[in-house]
Amino acid sequence: MGAIRYPLSFNQYTTKLQWNLREAVEGCARQGVRGFSVWRDKLAECGVKEAAKILSDNGMTVTGLCRGGMFPAADAAGRRAAIEDNLRAVEEAVAIDAQCLVLVCGGVPEGSKDLHGAHQMVRDGIAAVLPHAKAAGMPLAIEPLHPMYAAERSVINSIEHANDLCDELGEGVGIAVDVYHLWWDPYLEREIKRAAKTDPKRILAFHICDWLVPTTDIWLDRGMMGDGCIDIPQIRGWMEEAGYEGFAEVEILSSRWWKEDPDEVVRLCVERHATVC
Amino acid sequence: MGAIRYPLSFNQYTTKLQWNLREAVEGCARQGVRGFSVWRDKLAECGVKEAAKILSDNGMTVTGLCRGGMFPAADAAGRRAAIEDNLRAVEEAVAIDAQCLVLVCGGVPEGSKDLHGAHQMVRDGIAAVLPHAKAAGMPLAIEPLHPMYAAERSVINSIEHANDLCDELGEGVGIAVDVYHLWWDPYLEREIKRAAKTDPKRILAFHICDWLVPTTDIWLDRGMMGDGCIDIPQIRGWMEEAGYEGFAEVEILSSRWWKEDPDEVVRLCVERHATVC
Repeated sequence: MGAIRYPLSFNQYTTKLQWNLREAVEGCARQGVRGFSVWRDKLAECGVKEAAKILSDNGMTVTGLCRGGMFPAADAAGRRAAIEDNLRAVEEAVAIDAQCLVLVCGGVPEGSKDLHGAHQMVRDGIAAVLPHAKAAGMPLAIEPLHPMYAAERSVINSIEHANDLCDELGEGVGIAVDVYHLWWDPYLEREIKRAAKTDPKRILAFHICDWLVPTTDIWLDRGMMGDGCIDIPQIRGWMEEAGYEGFAEVEILSSRWWKEDPDEVVRLCVERHATVC
Repeated sequence: MGAIRYPLSFNQYTTKLQWNLREAVEGCARQGVRGFSVWRDKLAECGVKEAAKILSDNGMTVTGLCRGGMFPAADAAGRRAAIEDNLRAVEEAVAIDAQCLVLVCGGVPEGSKDLHGAHQMVRDGIAAVLPHAKAAGMPLAIEPLHPMYAAERSVINSIEHANDLCDELGEGVGIAVDVYHLWWDPYLEREIKRAAKTDPKRILAFHICDWLVPTTDIWLDRGMMGDGCIDIPQIRGWMEEAGYEGFAEVEILSSRWWKEDPDEVVRLCVERHATVC
């Protein structure tokens, strides 16, 4: 395996329950982490202007704002509200100088069984936000989510589907590759290459954590890198071959890690990033 | 929606904790169910010869034997043992006149991160069993499992991958289409058509249940047809277009339904099959 190529970024939901935005940014800076990814609830709590200052004062590259998306809704009013919320998210992403707005695209509307309809709502929603995002210079990063989240979080569940959607929507839309969501896919290497070949700027982010064996909870049992079965260096290699030049952003949603001392969590992320990623 | 086309088959794990093989077969027969799918632990408990007689006496079409597979293992001895177990499973499937032996292909070996290696072990395992299965006239049905089972149960997680594997292995290997595992896949229709076009006999089984919203457990929270978000008639329509002519086999692994009166479970399966499938 080659040298660790990508600098580490810290997604703040990795210490969601322990730290507010200032605490998390300063906690990361203390341990030499130079990338940081922000969640909107934490951003609202802190205030956008103050958050921008904290991030800048600590020298952070903001690798993403989480999250836009959630486009499907049972009625037109709901879909309009989602689009308006995404327009605000673009503004916020610009204000904190984020590298992209991460889109968790949304699941099947409550009570619906129309998967294809939900796909169309996602496409139409992104298309509605895109002109504004492009004018603002803010890339939209479709994050394909694990298929177990299709009903409730996102009907975009493979990088192949995300690539198809990017092909259809054109410039300004890209992909966030998260190993947790995509590790199982036998076509992952092919589709990372396809993404890069179609548009060298399509791959906008690289998220890391691990898939635990056993996994005991659908939502909050993501693992620390090295504790599970994902061959992270292999996927990193594919990212390198594809010319990706950003950060490796650790994002661990875990009721276990949310109980730990946050300084220790950051320390372990830094260590594991250097040894197993 | 057209008429209900496929007769109902009952996978006996739908009442796994309530009934042994005789009770389940007779319980289904009482309510007019004419298809039945057997699990090997229940078969062993009953005895193969006795089970064959019970199934035959009750006029059951045996839509499958669950399960072969589980090919990947950490060492060669483990892989050989898996192949030997699959050869026995073929014999058992023949003895009860099953329409296919369902393969849950196996996950990543414990402690391994080599997904691609596991794919190869699955291919090699099936290839080793195939001559025997063909000679015995027993089709092997690869059941692509939901990606959330990639680590622990099967590294074959999409019908596209199953089709690729069938292309490689040739005649005698087909696919079990289970809506629970595959409903989220935007390429499902395309791949069902591809399967049928390549080999009209490739699709060997059609399993039904539902994806609950929310789903609270990875293993044992499958839903009764109609209680979740899967558009079963749409997928059935794709099966019809593909020329599938077998049964619709209800397979609900659910700690909830395993607590209910089994006669009531069968009754509800029959009702839902007639109304929402």
